[in-house]
Amino acid sequence: MVANLGPRIVEGGIHQVRGFKANGISAGIKRMRKDLSIIYSVVPDTAAAGVFTTNKVRAAPVLVSEEHLSSGRARAIVCNAGCANAATGPQGLRDAEEMAALTASCLNIKPEEVVVASTGVIGRHLPMGIVREGIKNCAGTLDQAKPGDVAQAMMTTDLVPKEVLVEAEINGAIVHFGGVAKGSGMIHPNMATMLSWVVTDCAVGPDVLRTALRDVVDRSFNMISVDGDTSTNDMVVVLANGVAGNQPVTRQRGYQQLKDALYLVCETLAKRIARDGEGATTLIEVRIENARSASDARKAARSVTKSPLVKSAVFGRDPNWGRILAAVGYSGAEFDPAKVDIQMKSAAGAAWVLRNGEPCETLDKDGLRRIVDKDHVVFVVDLHDGECDATAWGCDLTYDYVKINADYTT
Amino acid sequence: MVANLGPRIVEGGIHQVRGFKANGISAGIKRMRKDLSIIYSVVPDTAAAGVFTTNKVRAAPVLVSEEHLSSGRARAIVCNAGCANAATGPQGLRDAEEMAALTASCLNIKPEEVVVASTGVIGRHLPMGIVREGIKNCAGTLDQAKPGDVAQAMMTTDLVPKEVLVEAEINGAIVHFGGVAKGSGMIHPNMATMLSWVVTDCAVGPDVLRTALRDVVDRSFNMISVDGDTSTNDMVVVLANGVAGNQPVTRQRGYQQLKDALYLVCETLAKRIARDGEGATTLIEVRIENARSASDARKAARSVTKSPLVKSAVFGRDPNWGRILAAVGYSGAEFDPAKVDIQMKSAAGAAWVLRNGEPCETLDKDGLRRIVDKDHVVFVVDLHDGECDATAWGCDLTYDYVKINADYTT
Repeated sequence: MVANLGPRIVEGGIHQVRGFKANGISAGIKRMRKDLSIIYSVVPDTAAAGVFTTNKVRAAPVLVSEEHLSSGRARAIVCNAGCANAATGPQGLRDAEEMAALTASCLNIKPEEVVVASTGVIGRHLPMGIVREGIKNCAGTLDQAKPGDVAQAMMTTDLVPKEVLVEAEINGAIVHFGGVAKGSGMIHPNMATMLSWVVTDCAVGPDVLRTALRDVVDRSFNMISVDGDTSTNDMVVVLANGVAGNQPVTRQRGYQQLKDALYLVCETLAKRIARDGEGATTLIEVRIENARSASDARKAARSVTKSPLVKSAVFGRDPNWGRILAAVGYSGAEFDPAKVDIQMKSAAGAAWVLRNGEPCETLDKDGLRRIVDKDHVVFVVDLHDGECDATAWGCDLTYDYVKINADYTT
Repeated sequence: MVANLGPRIVEGGIHQVRGFKANGISAGIKRMRKDLSIIYSVVPDTAAAGVFTTNKVRAAPVLVSEEHLSSGRARAIVCNAGCANAATGPQGLRDAEEMAALTASCLNIKPEEVVVASTGVIGRHLPMGIVREGIKNCAGTLDQAKPGDVAQAMMTTDLVPKEVLVEAEINGAIVHFGGVAKGSGMIHPNMATMLSWVVTDCAVGPDVLRTALRDVVDRSFNMISVDGDTSTNDMVVVLANGVAGNQPVTRQRGYQQLKDALYLVCETLAKRIARDGEGATTLIEVRIENARSASDARKAARSVTKSPLVKSAVFGRDPNWGRILAAVGYSGAEFDPAKVDIQMKSAAGAAWVLRNGEPCETLDKDGLRRIVDKDHVVFVVDLHDGECDATAWGCDLTYDYVKINADYTT
């Protein structure tokens, strides 16, 4: 690898990251699908950091994992799908703690070194008999995993597993970052997304790792939306075991490279979550340019990706840009409507539809329709009111979103 | 009418309010449907008040009407459907001003006494030739109107016209309040709703009228949501001509009766808008009880009515109360999840599903399904954390919402 090259996506997944083992199995919580996974670092001194949902209602595993990660150290992640263990009271907390303790016992580490996560239906207790058997089976077969098993075992209504491997040179060594994520509905993360795990062999201490993760998550997972519903179980965790042998990353040395690599992992997974939003046919990318503040840019971008009217219009391949402008208007962002430009872009071309707050007179409706009729559509909104930009990702609102969510628990 | 009786809904509409004339006609902006209406007070000294959208992008008629209403006086409202006259720049402003001036000229009043409103597609200029002819025809036929004409001429994707007549005794006289409203999509009002006009023969000055209107709108129109999209054209206006001959309402005398009557008009229309939300099959009512503050109660109630996951579940008759709890959790309201109770109610019965943050063990799934399978479903969320309540109204998210909005401009 040539020095000074930035991070890049390479073939493979979390299994290619040295010093980690992982497996995903079918424990029986969900019928006929993988539903339980464990990731394990063989290195005792593994740095760890996490960000968690801001929902006031936090699932039991979120509470347990946040406490375990407060030390900045963790060596394992155990995760089940099919039941969120949220709104489950003291019993739910005991179940989450038992998941950590049992995983620790199987791996011969401490319970505090285990991150616990659950995803699925809210308001039901975990079937602990099945979960216990599953943890023992999974922990005993970490060497037998096939690529993709962990990502598959996190899925709920996801249609495709989401996994990525990034390679970068940091402080004199080639390091790898492997990431997996799940998320399909109840996706409007705030400081975290549904579930994502990143493992790296990069040498970095927990404080630097935590700072980098927060920064990266704010620009990646926190900028996607499927339906505007912030989950009770959102969690992003990164484990760094230092096996790559690079000189440890500090704020002075290698920090930007670490952030760039971590961002590439998180942005890639975040966009895959948006593209695989429940029922989605189109990835919608909204770029706000020249806003007065970063906060204004973020608010405006997320408001457009969240708008059911914008999302429905994209599904109908309808270049109804008035709805984009309206969504920026009620976003809470400060701007002058008379200065706004809007452009629509895709593989089929690009066209300005609004200039200085007025419709462009020469609009070719058929041309606009062709632009919107692609599986990745970009809306650029230039506020001409400052120097801050932000990008958000979402998906269209389709009959299938309604269908999937009209009948999920039953 | 017996004294001290509160306001009540009686048969009829805005035509029964003394001293007002109104008509709605088919001008030709929309094919084959009524699309232009005028309401006119024969009394020179008519008090008027309005509330307007908080969207940063405000349609031209909103800007013109807010200026005209700043005097607290107005005698006419002219409204077209089929084109919102929003994002139309200086030409849009000139068009809105011309609508007011032409209406004034036909009625022999001043342009500043005319409120202007438009609803429909954003980003297109008004077809002023058609609009001019329509205003002249409508103003010349105010005596020829049939009941319902005005409400019909405001409709866009609305399926049913929304009109109500309320009778009340205020300061020694029987007074009437007639209200009409439209609204079906892009409904998540903030300080106003899509469009609603209330006319009354009550004697009341503009300051008192304005204060009462603000209070009432906050508890009625501002508590409904169809899709979370706040429009660029929202406007609620009340005209009061004093023909009833009551002693004028002041803050000390008759104010509560005025507010009660106005609230009955606005709540009735607001609920009809929610029930007639695009594609809706069910009116969803969310009551937050015992919140720490009024703001917390309102935030939590609106968060639930806005949640696509809650709305889809209701469409599927799925009693998925975990989504209700999650939506309260991310609403921004302060509360303790361990104290929350949730009850589901409808004409089919009532059941507690969550007590002290934990699922009720004795849930009868089929019974819950029967409760949700009605055209009006109530979710009561008791936070046990204070003394403030709020109620919000919304509707379910259906295939038809997506269908309607996937193909609206074309």
